[in-house]
Amino acid sequence: MSDRTGILLVVSGPSGSGKTTLCHRLSDEREAHYSISCTTRAPRPGEKNGEDYHFLTIEAFEAKLAAGEFLEHAQVHGNFYGTLRTEVLGYLAAGTDVVMDIDVQGAAQVRACADPAIVRSRVDLFVMPPSEHELHARLAGRATDSDEVIALRMKNALEEMHHWPEYTYRLLSSTREEDYMRFKALVVAERLRVSRLNGA
Amino acid sequence: MSDRTGILLVVSGPSGSGKTTLCHRLSDEREAHYSISCTTRAPRPGEKNGEDYHFLTIEAFEAKLAAGEFLEHAQVHGNFYGTLRTEVLGYLAAGTDVVMDIDVQGAAQVRACADPAIVRSRVDLFVMPPSEHELHARLAGRATDSDEVIALRMKNALEEMHHWPEYTYRLLSSTREEDYMRFKALVVAERLRVSRLNGA
Repeated sequence: MSDRTGILLVVSGPSGSGKTTLCHRLSDEREAHYSISCTTRAPRPGEKNGEDYHFLTIEAFEAKLAAGEFLEHAQVHGNFYGTLRTEVLGYLAAGTDVVMDIDVQGAAQVRACADPAIVRSRVDLFVMPPSEHELHARLAGRATDSDEVIALRMKNALEEMHHWPEYTYRLLSSTREEDYMRFKALVVAERLRVSRLNGA
Repeated sequence: MSDRTGILLVVSGPSGSGKTTLCHRLSDEREAHYSISCTTRAPRPGEKNGEDYHFLTIEAFEAKLAAGEFLEHAQVHGNFYGTLRTEVLGYLAAGTDVVMDIDVQGAAQVRACADPAIVRSRVDLFVMPPSEHELHARLAGRATDSDEVIALRMKNALEEMHHWPEYTYRLLSSTREEDYMRFKALVVAERLRVSRLNGA
């Protein structure tokens, strides 16, 4: 048995905040398991099933939803997203930290969840872009998106940013290295939390 | 105005845990103000008044106590120790982090304090020596202490160690650098806490 239960690190923030890069790096450095979400949206160029997302049909998603297999789910930009309980609970019990890159609706569901294993494990963080100007620059920098998509993303991002006070921690993005240093510090610190230590 | 209020980092742990070294280093690196305690015990060789402690007579200590000037105070090994409110509150309001190196009695008083400025700021950490064996080695390594003093310190340390579950965070000491990396991570992480950000 591990000497502690894992951290369930819930990370939200608008497109362009850099949250996904932070979460992937934490996982790449083997500090945490990256929880792979299910989605009904079409894969973007380069995205792989089972790595970036579990790509599901609407029918398959709804069947899992009806069976109670999701820890959280949300509809964003007309598509369904959700996290399967199996992506999270076993890891936490084994003392492995799990990082979830999810939107504000999903985070609110994790926050409202009464399952003691989730209550004990969860921590949430909102990653904020440094400024509207920089956010626009970051969103416009994605070569795959049209001007209309960028404008919609900007609008959605600004709306999503109103939710930061609902989170326990907020990271105001600066440079990539500085952001990761702080993000990692949060994980290191949460590993010291007495309420997750066995025998406390 | 600072964008946040300061962290009041309350650090306890037995003699030999390394807590004082951690607190002083944080202060030396200008990451936090080291709260200087008052004490009625005699200075040890090399200790300076106003740097290591404010050394007070019993009469002077009791006068400040009667005047309500202490945020916390405790009697340890027959001597009085206490933290003046002036060592803490102004720094926190200005957004400066404060580190308090105090015993389990003092920490319990800070934890019980209802002053909103303290409630908002406080975080507590218990530093544990890695093992009884290593603790004894560390306590015996102090050339200034007699065998009787070491035996008494060991007994007191083992008693004090029972209190770690009362704290929010626990640091199990390993190497000096590893300990400081984690200690600093806790400070970096707590600076992200939304409840201390102005405008949340």
